[in-house]
Amino acid sequence: MPRLKLTVAYVGTDFAGWQIQEFKTRARPRTVQGELEKAVAVLTGQPVRVHGSGRTDSGVHAEAQIAHLDVPDTGRSINWMRSFAALLPHDLSVLAVEEAPEKFHSRFDAVGKQYSYALWLDRPAVPPRLRPFVWETGPLDRTAMEQAANALLGEHDFSSFRNAGADISGSVRTIHSIRCEALSPAHQLWHFEASGFLKQMVRNLMGLLVYAGRGKIAPDTISGVIAAQNRRALPSPTAPAKGLTLVRVLY
Amino acid sequence: MPRLKLTVAYVGTDFAGWQIQEFKTRARPRTVQGELEKAVAVLTGQPVRVHGSGRTDSGVHAEAQIAHLDVPDTGRSINWMRSFAALLPHDLSVLAVEEAPEKFHSRFDAVGKQYSYALWLDRPAVPPRLRPFVWETGPLDRTAMEQAANALLGEHDFSSFRNAGADISGSVRTIHSIRCEALSPAHQLWHFEASGFLKQMVRNLMGLLVYAGRGKIAPDTISGVIAAQNRRALPSPTAPAKGLTLVRVLY
Repeated sequence: MPRLKLTVAYVGTDFAGWQIQEFKTRARPRTVQGELEKAVAVLTGQPVRVHGSGRTDSGVHAEAQIAHLDVPDTGRSINWMRSFAALLPHDLSVLAVEEAPEKFHSRFDAVGKQYSYALWLDRPAVPPRLRPFVWETGPLDRTAMEQAANALLGEHDFSSFRNAGADISGSVRTIHSIRCEALSPAHQLWHFEASGFLKQMVRNLMGLLVYAGRGKIAPDTISGVIAAQNRRALPSPTAPAKGLTLVRVLY
Repeated sequence: MPRLKLTVAYVGTDFAGWQIQEFKTRARPRTVQGELEKAVAVLTGQPVRVHGSGRTDSGVHAEAQIAHLDVPDTGRSINWMRSFAALLPHDLSVLAVEEAPEKFHSRFDAVGKQYSYALWLDRPAVPPRLRPFVWETGPLDRTAMEQAANALLGEHDFSSFRNAGADISGSVRTIHSIRCEALSPAHQLWHFEASGFLKQMVRNLMGLLVYAGRGKIAPDTISGVIAAQNRRALPSPTAPAKGLTLVRVLY
């Protein structure tokens, strides 16, 4: 059973996240994993699990999510790229298919992740083409946000930034970098790289940075928020899903 | 009655083009002009015509279409930017509102237009975020396309590139430039600037360039296509609307 590594891109707007959801009594929500497994089942004639590097929330986008699957012996060769292109919906693409080592695991082998979060700050009005991909925040103090970002770097227990839900591997992560790229005066792309992220952690980090950019929290109080190791210590709301994109999984 | 100049952006996918279409017996198709006039009617309490610099076809996008309108005296001041933001649908934005000279006319005063046309050439697969905005052509010979583009420059009667439909001001236009920008090896943006364009002219130009890029027409036969001044002399199909964006109107 050869193992395949998939590089997957999607517009998250119309997906209920990555993870397949099983219900006995009502219609399944549309998920990325569900659409991929549906296509693979058509191609192989049998149910095959597609494992992702991690879940993305409902509404979150991906430029290069990584997944793997084991191809059952069907007695014939499959042109995977062409078949995915024919079978997948318009908002989901497999960008690359590679044969992976037998022991490759998209989730357990990942050593880091990069996300980006896009903000739109006031005038001019956001171009409609960008609207599904940005959080329209109004004006922000970038210097205060960068000071707040610096206070978040390094290895910490990030329990204060984790929304409710099961995480498997503790709550200590290392944030390697948080960097602001100004694509235009109104359009900021915030780049996050860490050893991994807890549930909704990037959105909670971004929510706090925007809070700082609005002058609602002093950057020097952020170490206290981290130290509390408690979501209730985080004063800021979770940033909306639509601004967030999984950019790269590091192995 | 002050005259306002609007800068308008839209994602064309779900619009039946710019121009409002009147039917007595069935539902009006959704148009950009129609949505703008609907918003203006809400704000002024009366029907007001919104004049565009030109029609864009069904499915064509705009980064900065220009329009004007005369504001009737309503006895109160209107915050136009805020009101448009509140009233317009998600795929249509007014980016700027300016008071224009009394005699400004968005169409008659225009001295040129810039369009871009986006192509996606094969591997990797097109990212789903770009899919509504590119023509997926497969591999193309860029050198042949650039030779073909050179043969189109200058002042010509472009009747061979005009699809059926009434144009008001003859069929002679001047193409100032056609330039290819490679955003990535697979993603090309073709920039067109001319004194004006006939109905579906950019899409017919792009269709011919892609035809040349597939080796189906020799660049040195293109002068003959122009000289014929007849749409039937054009051997290539009209390029799809979705790759086309009105970038700028020149005054």
